[in-house]
Amino acid sequence: MNGNRFGQLFQVTTFGESHGEAMGCTVSGCPAGVELDESDIQTELDRRKPGQSMITTSRGEPDKVSLNSGLQDGYTTGTPIGMVIQNKDARSGKYEPFVTAPRPSHGDFTYSAKFGTRNWGGGGRSSARETVNWVAAGAVAKQVLDQSDHDIQLKAHVSQVGDIKAPEVSFEEMLEHTEENDVRCAHPETAAQMREAIDEYQQEGDSIGGAVYFECRGVPRGLGAPRFDSFSARLGQAVFAIPAVTSFQFGAGWDARTMRGSERNEDWEFDDGSRQETVSEAGDPVPEGNDHGGLQGGITTGEPIYGEATWHAPTSIPKRQETVDWETEERKEVQVVGRHDPVLMPRAVPVLEAMLRLVILDFMLLGGYINPDRLDDRPGEYDTPYHPTSPRTDGDPS
Amino acid sequence: MNGNRFGQLFQVTTFGESHGEAMGCTVSGCPAGVELDESDIQTELDRRKPGQSMITTSRGEPDKVSLNSGLQDGYTTGTPIGMVIQNKDARSGKYEPFVTAPRPSHGDFTYSAKFGTRNWGGGGRSSARETVNWVAAGAVAKQVLDQSDHDIQLKAHVSQVGDIKAPEVSFEEMLEHTEENDVRCAHPETAAQMREAIDEYQQEGDSIGGAVYFECRGVPRGLGAPRFDSFSARLGQAVFAIPAVTSFQFGAGWDARTMRGSERNEDWEFDDGSRQETVSEAGDPVPEGNDHGGLQGGITTGEPIYGEATWHAPTSIPKRQETVDWETEERKEVQVVGRHDPVLMPRAVPVLEAMLRLVILDFMLLGGYINPDRLDDRPGEYDTPYHPTSPRTDGDPS
Amino acid sequence: MNGNRFGQLFQVTTFGESHGEAMGCTVSGCPAGVELDESDIQTELDRRKPGQSMITTSRGEPDKVSLNSGLQDGYTTGTPIGMVIQNKDARSGKYEPFVTAPRPSHGDFTYSAKFGTRNWGGGGRSSARETVNWVAAGAVAKQVLDQSDHDIQLKAHVSQVGDIKAPEVSFEEMLEHTEENDVRCAHPETAAQMREAIDEYQQEGDSIGGAVYFECRGVPRGLGAPRFDSFSARLGQAVFAIPAVTSFQFGAGWDARTMRGSERNEDWEFDDGSRQETVSEAGDPVPEGNDHGGLQGGITTGEPIYGEATWHAPTSIPKRQETVDWETEERKEVQVVGRHDPVLMPRAVPVLEAMLRLVILDFMLLGGYINPDRLDDRPGEYDTPYHPTSPRTDGDPS
Amino acid sequence: MNGNRFGQLFQVTTFGESHGEAMGCTVSGCPAGVELDESDIQTELDRRKPGQSMITTSRGEPDKVSLNSGLQDGYTTGTPIGMVIQNKDARSGKYEPFVTAPRPSHGDFTYSAKFGTRNWGGGGRSSARETVNWVAAGAVAKQVLDQSDHDIQLKAHVSQVGDIKAPEVSFEEMLEHTEENDVRCAHPETAAQMREAIDEYQQEGDSIGGAVYFECRGVPRGLGAPRFDSFSARLGQAVFAIPAVTSFQFGAGWDARTMRGSERNEDWEFDDGSRQETVSEAGDPVPEGNDHGGLQGGITTGEPIYGEATWHAPTSIPKRQETVDWETEERKEVQVVGRHDPVLMPRAVPVLEAMLRLVILDFMLLGGYINPDRLDDRPGEYDTPYHPTSPRTDGDPS
Repeated sequence: MNGNRFGQLFQVTTFGESHGEAMGCTVSGCPAGVELDESDIQTELDRRKPGQSMITTSRGEPDKVSLNSGLQDGYTTGTPIGMVIQNKDARSGKYEPFVTAPRPSHGDFTYSAKFGTRNWGGGGRSSARETVNWVAAGAVAKQVLDQSDHDIQLKAHVSQVGDIKAPEVSFEEMLEHTEENDVRCAHPETAAQMREAIDEYQQEGDSIGGAVYFECRGVPRGLGAPRFDSFSARLGQAVFAIPAVTSFQFGAGWDARTMRGSERNEDWEFDDGSRQETVSEAGDPVPEGNDHGGLQGGITTGEPIYGEATWHAPTSIPKRQETVDWETEERKEVQVVGRHDPVLMPRAVPVLEAMLRLVILDFMLLGGYINPDRLDDRPGEYDTPYHPTSPRTDGDPS
Repeated sequence: MNGNRFGQLFQVTTFGESHGEAMGCTVSGCPAGVELDESDIQTELDRRKPGQSMITTSRGEPDKVSLNSGLQDGYTTGTPIGMVIQNKDARSGKYEPFVTAPRPSHGDFTYSAKFGTRNWGGGGRSSARETVNWVAAGAVAKQVLDQSDHDIQLKAHVSQVGDIKAPEVSFEEMLEHTEENDVRCAHPETAAQMREAIDEYQQEGDSIGGAVYFECRGVPRGLGAPRFDSFSARLGQAVFAIPAVTSFQFGAGWDARTMRGSERNEDWEFDDGSRQETVSEAGDPVPEGNDHGGLQGGITTGEPIYGEATWHAPTSIPKRQETVDWETEERKEVQVVGRHDPVLMPRAVPVLEAMLRLVILDFMLLGGYINPDRLDDRPGEYDTPYHPTSPRTDGDPS
Repeated sequence: MNGNRFGQLFQVTTFGESHGEAMGCTVSGCPAGVELDESDIQTELDRRKPGQSMITTSRGEPDKVSLNSGLQDGYTTGTPIGMVIQNKDARSGKYEPFVTAPRPSHGDFTYSAKFGTRNWGGGGRSSARETVNWVAAGAVAKQVLDQSDHDIQLKAHVSQVGDIKAPEVSFEEMLEHTEENDVRCAHPETAAQMREAIDEYQQEGDSIGGAVYFECRGVPRGLGAPRFDSFSARLGQAVFAIPAVTSFQFGAGWDARTMRGSERNEDWEFDDGSRQETVSEAGDPVPEGNDHGGLQGGITTGEPIYGEATWHAPTSIPKRQETVDWETEERKEVQVVGRHDPVLMPRAVPVLEAMLRLVILDFMLLGGYINPDRLDDRPGEYDTPYHPTSPRTDGDPS
Repeated sequence: MNGNRFGQLFQVTTFGESHGEAMGCTVSGCPAGVELDESDIQTELDRRKPGQSMITTSRGEPDKVSLNSGLQDGYTTGTPIGMVIQNKDARSGKYEPFVTAPRPSHGDFTYSAKFGTRNWGGGGRSSARETVNWVAAGAVAKQVLDQSDHDIQLKAHVSQVGDIKAPEVSFEEMLEHTEENDVRCAHPETAAQMREAIDEYQQEGDSIGGAVYFECRGVPRGLGAPRFDSFSARLGQAVFAIPAVTSFQFGAGWDARTMRGSERNEDWEFDDGSRQETVSEAGDPVPEGNDHGGLQGGITTGEPIYGEATWHAPTSIPKRQETVDWETEERKEVQVVGRHDPVLMPRAVPVLEAMLRLVILDFMLLGGYINPDRLDDRPGEYDTPYHPTSPRTDGDPS
């Protein structure tokens, strides 16, 4: 439990600091037979990349991934996929004021308290730059899910920036509009307002917090290991691992505190065949509503899984702040004048989506919904007939 | 990852269903030399026990723990502590309507979807009765922490029931008042109102949700494994593992979404010696506030760790509801007429405290703050001098 | 990694010391739908039980197992199976000379060096009595394997006692003869000689070492996670975890050191349909021999897996020995006059078989050969139709 | 449990195939404050490198390591160390005959049976080339151990090649002579004979098996987690994970089967101060001999840990062999004419040493003998004084 690994069967291990040589990620436990190339990963990295718009840091990282292993002739081989992303535009000079003085509210102090030393360039491993690895791993997970016999769809969008809150949007709107604007808010008018507000915060040398909402559809029933590894527990770990997240809720979430049992409880009824958003088929028992957010007893019901998390404002701001220098033992004024985001959520959208995919895929492998050794009917070029057959390929046959 | 284990070094493994023979819990990784007897555990179990007041289920479980191993002459031996708690008052008869029909919003359906069978008595393993094991394990953790050289204090109390919200209370008030009333709210006047409201919900055959607030003091700086196993990530897992939790926040939490960076950031200053609530000493760098909730970059700062979680209303209510029977393939009206709690939070307080202790202790062992093999200077009767010395016994010496 | 857990998906957690209240074992990750009752476990425990013959310790332990959870109506529910075995005949008095003086070559000294204390009664947790838990867990694994669609058979027998070595026996002879005699040697004449020799060692107040040979048939091709968790690596861990094992080999094993590549290599040929001992079918590629012991590249070939391990002589012997007392700081003569086995292998046979089953089953679950959630077509009484279908049920379809 | 990870606290994750782009290894859990540069790793890689002598494959791999993270100013930072080693001289052409036909006794067939596809170039991930990653990780472990306050020394040498067996050598001879000759046998005369024999096997287009002996000194008392994670169990896993190992023994090992208890047992005596090879000090209890190989009850005694493993002959030989083609469904003659080693042990010596270090260091971190966060008194340049103090730095104080 060193913090650099995630997942039980679909195992992600990462390395890399903001200003080190390279970032990297090894995915172990990806089934064989998945079609995969660098562009599948690049697409996702580009969504998280710095410098993609005026409201992201101007650090010039191409975030170009190299796939070093785990592939043959365009298909995964079941062996670990080693990925490396070079750091190209680290400029440590601006961090010199902070070598022996922690930036306010950043991980500078705590990393030093833990390791007894100071990895000062760009925040070292505490930098959110490290999530580039998560997105790379999530992109592999996406290919596995997309090529499986399950129709799993998920999307996140920025639902709040400061006081500006987007109205409720449908899943279809999220799919359609989220990537259309730099803010990644699925409600275009709100996106425009958010953008304006962000520009103002940025001009003032300040930053702002907000929220991201997500929804997952098509996740089969029965996922989640009861109690400590329930779907909700692992979701909790995954979301609170994301830098700057300070709250998380799913289903009715926060509001459930004021709801009566009779109000929140959802009767069971039979699916009449009209439901689109769930994995159930006509005749299956289905709950009449979804205040439970797709999770009952910590296990998936087959209904959409949805929730929302809060991100605090970026801590690196050009405004004057104060800190202490542990060498001189004096207080000093500082300005964090590197290249920083005024708001985290737009780039956090692909990070959250990646984490959701890692959680879902891991549970699908653990439950045998996808064969851990090999994605069936997705042979590589040199297929061998001596492989045992047919894992569970259908999540919900009834 | 079957869900029945928690912790990396201080490992808890549980078994038991609501209406099975017994509940049980094995703690592996408890250091040797900790003074421990059954009463230490019983004290905590009694706080969670059913039937302790009029606002808890009337199920008559003594929850008497047997310690089967891991002890000699009143001290732990470093070997696993096997605990068993007999189920004495299971009455499965009332569950017969639900054998082939899931109770609304309970884990009945999802457990069956996962395992393909129906463990119907009392909800089987999906029952919150299972948390008796967590409290037993947490009671062991409490002894380890209390007997270590660290002064770790933590307390939770019920901060909200339905619309009734307690005003902010100090840590000292929490310590003093929480256990004085059945609701476990540290603000006596609010507690009385909450109690009245709960009685009403109960009389109406209904139930209600709410929230629990917690605070931990004395947790050393530097705990938490960056990224996926950060203190916040493991806290997220621990809290969302608790049955019925639907939201969690720490520090400024939810409100951080509307805060600017300049507002939420906390300058560093030198401790002037007046701080009581933190682990720092005069001259140490300390943040000027604690909107960060004791965690920066996912690692502890030494400031108090605090947060709040939401519990939804108990799903087992006497009010009429509807469900479907998968055998008859018909809808039917049901009433859950067993013995159930109208509100979960009062009994969830010791459960949350237990999980917090498990998280804190595990990180302290992982970081070497407490020797994983043996609590020093706490010898058993037949002490041997051939043990290696002196682990880290002081969290923060500067 | 506290030593009290084994298995990744089929997870065994144990507790208990030789002279404690009880031994116990929790099996987490047993699929639902397996028919199981206490007699299935008792049968295996009886094979390991003390006092079963004149060449085992006379300690009078009934080793009666209680199943506390994980079952309904005779079928497993997918939730953890908690088992407890009371200790009934602990007599600690005879251990008093050793309270501050380690028995020669036992775990007394090292356990004290590790934990800094002395759990002296009967050797505490270092006692081989603890393997009663392993056999209980292995008995559950046996039921899962036996009720799966795979025909996995395995057997161990005592192949050597001191200088007396059994001639090679067939798998069928092992199945037929092993349990016929107290020594558990499948070659009746050799068994008789071994028995005579053991009696002599015992009369002399001494003990003797030996070896156990095993063979597993029907294990599907493709089991084992390459590199650190290869089938051979996990076998190595499992076998060397058994108390008193000092060497292990599989396939040609030790002798492979003097074999040329051209001698040990086995050409591939097509199965002509005459092979009984392998999982292959007519037309499949099969190696022409089995010096590889069923494992190539650390993964199963489908050929029988076989090997042999050495047990050293029991260290507890009535003969005079010397030790030191760390309290008096003096040397002293001692005799270990408790009730002890003159030879370990006869009772180690079921222990080894249990460990083999744990390894095999875990890999079968990990590879999707058996559905981790539920053994298909083995429904409990209250089956639900909403379970996802059909895991891999056939190891080798070609 | 995908096979690509080793270690609980000192965690190694590897990727890479014989003919892929690159090999790589991430070490997570290395304490901060360890002086480390690429040359420390290169030194070990060079000992394992192909082409280092006439009795190793002529594949021209420089095995040049790049350190991508985890370091600042020459010291480790506590964050993961990402290492990449480019593959420079893969020539897949010679493997074309084997695309649909497994090489005899190699992992070709089993990897395909597992993953359902064929990663044919150079044996893919089943190639022993993958152990380059293990040696890289072991080199990091070596620096941690060497810079700790413990004086841990270990050495392996080739003790047998075919029928040629080296006489017993002292630890000092192993240290002095092993690296003097290409065979890595510490007995120079025997080394010469072995060399001659290997040349002959090679000229005949054949290969040969053998054995490697090892010894570890200075390992503190009390290491090893009783039962499933005992020192012996983890040693068993580590050694049997090494490609081509078919037997392993420690202490009296194989021979223990013919020893009586009274013969193998070792009385306890007081160290008279003359012992050099153990961690004990004058007055400590010590066993009078070391047939137990430094391990009692699976935990270290402080005496030297020693053992021996068997390697089978390399399976890739130029001699004619037969295999089957699963596409044509015909048998065919083959010759493995790539560049291969006639004997594995000389290059396996650094691999075994690496695995031993990984096991020892992991247990030292788990037991608190070395602080998991930071190697004390080994500060980096920007040391912070806010780190908790002084882990156990002395293994055996008495």
